[in-house]
Amino acid sequence: MDATAQIDLSFMIPIAILAGLGFAAILTRDILRRDTGSDRMREIAGAIQQGARAFLRRQYKTIALIAAALAILFAVALGAQKGLLVGSETAGAFALGATFSALSGYIGMHIAIRSNVRSAAGSLKSFNDALVIALRGGAVSGLSIVSMSLAGVALLYYGYGALGSAVNPTTLNDCITAGYTVALCTAKATEDSLILSIVGFGFGASLVALFAQLGGGIYTKAADVGADLVGKVEAGIPEDDPRNPAVVADLVGDNVGDCAGRGADLFESTAAENIGAMVLGVVLFPFFGIAGVIFPLVARSFGLVASIVGVFVVRAREDEAPMSALNRGYIIASVLAAILFGVAAWAMLQPSSPTASGSLTWAYYWVCGIAGMVTAVVYVWVTQYYTEARYRPVRDIAKASETGPATNIISGFAVGLEATAIPAVVVSIAILFSFWLGESTGIPGGGIYGTAIATMGMLATAAYILAMDTFGPIVDNGAGIIEMAGMSEAARKNMDKLDAAGNTTKALTKGYAVGSAALAAFLLFNAFLSEARVKAVDLAHPETFIGGFMGAALVFLFTAFAIRAVGRAAWSIIKDVRDQFRENPGIMAGTVKPDYGRTVDICTRSALREMVIPGILAVATPLAVGLLFRFVKITYVLDPVTLQLSPLPAGEPLGATLMVGTIVGVLMALVLNTGGGAWDNAKKFIEAGNLGGKGSATHKAAVVGDTVGDPFKDTAGPSLHILVKLLSTITLVIAPLLIP
Amino acid sequence: MDATAQIDLSFMIPIAILAGLGFAAILTRDILRRDTGSDRMREIAGAIQQGARAFLRRQYKTIALIAAALAILFAVALGAQKGLLVGSETAGAFALGATFSALSGYIGMHIAIRSNVRSAAGSLKSFNDALVIALRGGAVSGLSIVSMSLAGVALLYYGYGALGSAVNPTTLNDCITAGYTVALCTAKATEDSLILSIVGFGFGASLVALFAQLGGGIYTKAADVGADLVGKVEAGIPEDDPRNPAVVADLVGDNVGDCAGRGADLFESTAAENIGAMVLGVVLFPFFGIAGVIFPLVARSFGLVASIVGVFVVRAREDEAPMSALNRGYIIASVLAAILFGVAAWAMLQPSSPTASGSLTWAYYWVCGIAGMVTAVVYVWVTQYYTEARYRPVRDIAKASETGPATNIISGFAVGLEATAIPAVVVSIAILFSFWLGESTGIPGGGIYGTAIATMGMLATAAYILAMDTFGPIVDNGAGIIEMAGMSEAARKNMDKLDAAGNTTKALTKGYAVGSAALAAFLLFNAFLSEARVKAVDLAHPETFIGGFMGAALVFLFTAFAIRAVGRAAWSIIKDVRDQFRENPGIMAGTVKPDYGRTVDICTRSALREMVIPGILAVATPLAVGLLFRFVKITYVLDPVTLQLSPLPAGEPLGATLMVGTIVGVLMALVLNTGGGAWDNAKKFIEAGNLGGKGSATHKAAVVGDTVGDPFKDTAGPSLHILVKLLSTITLVIAPLLIP
Repeated sequence: MDATAQIDLSFMIPIAILAGLGFAAILTRDILRRDTGSDRMREIAGAIQQGARAFLRRQYKTIALIAAALAILFAVALGAQKGLLVGSETAGAFALGATFSALSGYIGMHIAIRSNVRSAAGSLKSFNDALVIALRGGAVSGLSIVSMSLAGVALLYYGYGALGSAVNPTTLNDCITAGYTVALCTAKATEDSLILSIVGFGFGASLVALFAQLGGGIYTKAADVGADLVGKVEAGIPEDDPRNPAVVADLVGDNVGDCAGRGADLFESTAAENIGAMVLGVVLFPFFGIAGVIFPLVARSFGLVASIVGVFVVRAREDEAPMSALNRGYIIASVLAAILFGVAAWAMLQPSSPTASGSLTWAYYWVCGIAGMVTAVVYVWVTQYYTEARYRPVRDIAKASETGPATNIISGFAVGLEATAIPAVVVSIAILFSFWLGESTGIPGGGIYGTAIATMGMLATAAYILAMDTFGPIVDNGAGIIEMAGMSEAARKNMDKLDAAGNTTKALTKGYAVGSAALAAFLLFNAFLSEARVKAVDLAHPETFIGGFMGAALVFLFTAFAIRAVGRAAWSIIKDVRDQFRENPGIMAGTVKPDYGRTVDICTRSALREMVIPGILAVATPLAVGLLFRFVKITYVLDPVTLQLSPLPAGEPLGATLMVGTIVGVLMALVLNTGGGAWDNAKKFIEAGNLGGKGSATHKAAVVGDTVGDPFKDTAGPSLHILVKLLSTITLVIAPLLIP
Repeated sequence: MDATAQIDLSFMIPIAILAGLGFAAILTRDILRRDTGSDRMREIAGAIQQGARAFLRRQYKTIALIAAALAILFAVALGAQKGLLVGSETAGAFALGATFSALSGYIGMHIAIRSNVRSAAGSLKSFNDALVIALRGGAVSGLSIVSMSLAGVALLYYGYGALGSAVNPTTLNDCITAGYTVALCTAKATEDSLILSIVGFGFGASLVALFAQLGGGIYTKAADVGADLVGKVEAGIPEDDPRNPAVVADLVGDNVGDCAGRGADLFESTAAENIGAMVLGVVLFPFFGIAGVIFPLVARSFGLVASIVGVFVVRAREDEAPMSALNRGYIIASVLAAILFGVAAWAMLQPSSPTASGSLTWAYYWVCGIAGMVTAVVYVWVTQYYTEARYRPVRDIAKASETGPATNIISGFAVGLEATAIPAVVVSIAILFSFWLGESTGIPGGGIYGTAIATMGMLATAAYILAMDTFGPIVDNGAGIIEMAGMSEAARKNMDKLDAAGNTTKALTKGYAVGSAALAAFLLFNAFLSEARVKAVDLAHPETFIGGFMGAALVFLFTAFAIRAVGRAAWSIIKDVRDQFRENPGIMAGTVKPDYGRTVDICTRSALREMVIPGILAVATPLAVGLLFRFVKITYVLDPVTLQLSPLPAGEPLGATLMVGTIVGVLMALVLNTGGGAWDNAKKFIEAGNLGGKGSATHKAAVVGDTVGDPFKDTAGPSLHILVKLLSTITLVIAPLLIP
């Protein structure tokens, strides 16, 4: 089974990994030798660094405990079922995924807390300096995270033995001809242990990502809401005023929530997508040989190269809007990625057996990849439409604020709900179109591979997107440092312009992250069906319907817990700041420095305490559904081939939990992210001098919406992306345990 | 196929209908001859009556146009597919359902706008008088609506020919033995036209209910929010102050939204449930003969009798909490219904062929019915826990109001989200338990019949629940009339106590309505699968997954539209009231009466305009999904019996739209209803003198939450119940059109 016309491009994988890490190192050196501004700026930056490091250290300790407990649990359970070797291999892969995910978060934060002060110092000189430093700081985390994701999956693939060679093509063909689903046949024709290892890696990554995003998200918003309520509202001092003891905690929050959290999130996305696509590539073995399995890694490598180019071409003219400079880089990266994607497809996806699509097979899949890229663009566009003050939705919210906070809230919530419609339709079209195109190749299982390639296309420029995303908290911090250090008006104006752009990029990345989670989830469903030996996920069975019901309810309850956690943690900060003001009146007078560290410490402890319950809920619900229906048997189903009745497999209700949970999780994340972003910008629109401007009653009403939106868009929403992906990986890991 | 041991209790059906209507007439006479209070009170009541009638007249005109257009459309489409007779029969049944549903809404409102002033006049004499008049006013609508629902379904059943006799038992048995699903076999063994007629009736009922609830819900909350914002907030005058031109519109709203809307809603629920249960009863023909089909009607008849008794025993002691008097009646009605349910099961569900459960078969199903009743009780209890100030959730919201409106909103939203978990688990247990019990009888298809009977149990006391529900707007209106007419402090105190109880009963009924919608939906799924000739609803097929995605997105978008509609309609009222204050300064001085009619008129026009888009969306989405996949064919599936591949039936993606839409719709309705109720009562808790009491900053923050909750709990939430049921009936009606 060799594919003579193919060109093996797998040498690109190490090249891209090294290039990614190498450029990240070069950028880091470049950033570190930049000016760090005044003593006061260094002092503030030092406090932020100290707080962020302390948080991450303690957070990782907590996560390590939970992860170790789960690793042992799964290793024992899998070991009992599949033998000790498989159990320990899976546990090893789990540990690797968890470690890499934690490392991703750490790198993102590590460079961000150094770039912030340097970007601020750059703004003292020129706007372009500030922009370039911040974007390159973001790029360090983008490049190194995507490189690590690639390295991790490649390591598993080559380390644990080649996945493709474990496939038995005869078994596969016989199975498909007998009428079973493609997913089921792949499983039958492949050795379990390999897939399990890869899946264990994904589970480790998403488990750490969930806790990192939850803990960081709770921290950042508790600090933000707490600092605002007690500073702006109660004490009447401006944002980022050095007299507010919570102000450093607020700046720390941007790093641990947005950088560390999102880093772990996108590490997980790219890893999970790679895994899903490679598992599905196995099914194309009779046509593409091992190339179908390696193609996802090669495509990712090319995407990484394209992102590197994108990062290096960005330069801003002094009078240019920062978003237009960032968008220029994005467009270049995307076009380059599209071309390289075509090259990779042409080189590797040449079928060795005849197909309906003949010698154009590679082009079919190339178009699938481009469909994914278009989906990414549409998601970014829709997010902009619903969250930027130029368009109707945000203006409606601002207008509704004229009649008070209640109408502001109603209007913003309606915008969030409305913003689900177009993304839902777009992702549906992307799935259907790429599936149809893949099916049109005439290759059995080619449809779902088409969807896999669309997902790859969507994630091709992940490194650049991540760079734009991390850019956000860096300039946010930079603006805070400039403000606290009382620097010049010109520097402040430079940083404020970048800060506004940072808010936009953060919103766009979230849209992108949700969209890719939805697409990637559909892939992982198929991997799950294959692992769990499930023939269908038929909602007409009562168990399956209930499994779906539980998946949807999980999303609602998880959201409730995540939102409430912010409220509770914020409360502890408010209490501490009030205490500090009371204990030491010199703070408000400006004669005594507040104890920033004490507030940071309290915030750390509450955020870590509050992240445990929602995290456990996310892990326990699929486990509970799976185990319940492993033992409770009500419905009996007919095997289509043997025509015998057998009890409903436990994987079926669990599959519904996964799928309905994904649908609802994606939509709810869209509501929360978009609603939160729209409230934020409605407030900013009014602050820009519209509808009465800052200080008016309309502005006060808009501030309420902004505060409500904070835990929506920065805690619950981003955590839901990861919940969706965690559902995929945890169901995959427990799937073998459900087969009697 | 006769069942010798059975006792035919079908004679109970006309008896119960006549008893229900007869007692409703007696109560109406009793209410109408009561005192109507002072001239001022009569004048206000007259204005409310006029406004409510004008609204309903215009609303029904709009609905009639839409319904007629749809009736013709479906008749033509069905006629082309199934022949002219079937088409016109279905259209006729549709018209009947629509008419009865409209009539239900009309009766509810008609009696409520007469009972309000009489209950108010009763409060001048004694607390008990006010309570009994209001409850009996509610009972008129409860009894007549449930009687009409029973009469409508019975009319169809006996008028169009006996459903059971259309079943071919041999075909049924052969089909089941061959391994097809029960639902599919029922369809194969039954004549289409009969089921289609019954389904057409349900579709007509739910279509009218949706528009009635949407229009009424938008009206009531637009008037409420508008009156509050412009009166309490802007002009600083108290609620129900006669100087506020929107105050009559607000009182009219209670009648057209809560009475007319909920009346149509529960008419539809009971009718749809009867229909679903009867269709499923067909499958038990070999065991129970026609009794399995008639049993749902008989059980409903007994429930109606139990409710009549419950209404007549309620008497309040002068010092008693009104809720405890109402609960006493509910308990009596429930216990009696449980006993009568057992009698009906024992008499009618005696199998003529041997079953696994033997002579205890009836008891198995009786327990299913009791499980449904328990579910109702748990729903009511959970609603109380989350919405009453005695418990943690509402107190948390009140406490969160201390830090301002933003934390009040966050906390209330979290409560709403959290409140989905227990109901989701409870309804899941109810479905599984009753299905398992039904399966344990050993009768093929007995499982789903068990779920049907659980639903019957849940809806057994619907008439009493509806009486409690309509009680709410009557006393709300009564309290408003007393306030506007400036009556004595004692009367005001009596009515305020009842008003508070009315808020509770309204919240409870909503919980009950959601729960029964979820249970009933599961029945109707099975009817749909049978009608659409669909073997499975397998989310692993891309089309089906996308169908599910669209169902969930529909719920989000519908909610957005419903909420926004309230905002827009409220805006038009605010504008009018401001204009009136400006045009005529004598209004605020109290020397000139405002033009109440003008505001009522404006509110009517905006509410009717705003209800069209969400209504059309609800109808168009399932149609679009069905028709899309009627023509777009991507996935091919294997027939389990013939082993041939055929394109995925269009009913499968549509089934996912229905099922996932139902899951998400039920959960979203719970969020909106519970969140809204909790915000309302947190405000009331503060007004009762806690945490600073009325006028404090905490109270102002709580008022924001209350205002946000208004469109949630009285417009979007209740409309979602009906959306869920409409999805079931519309998919059933279009199912035959999707079979090539």
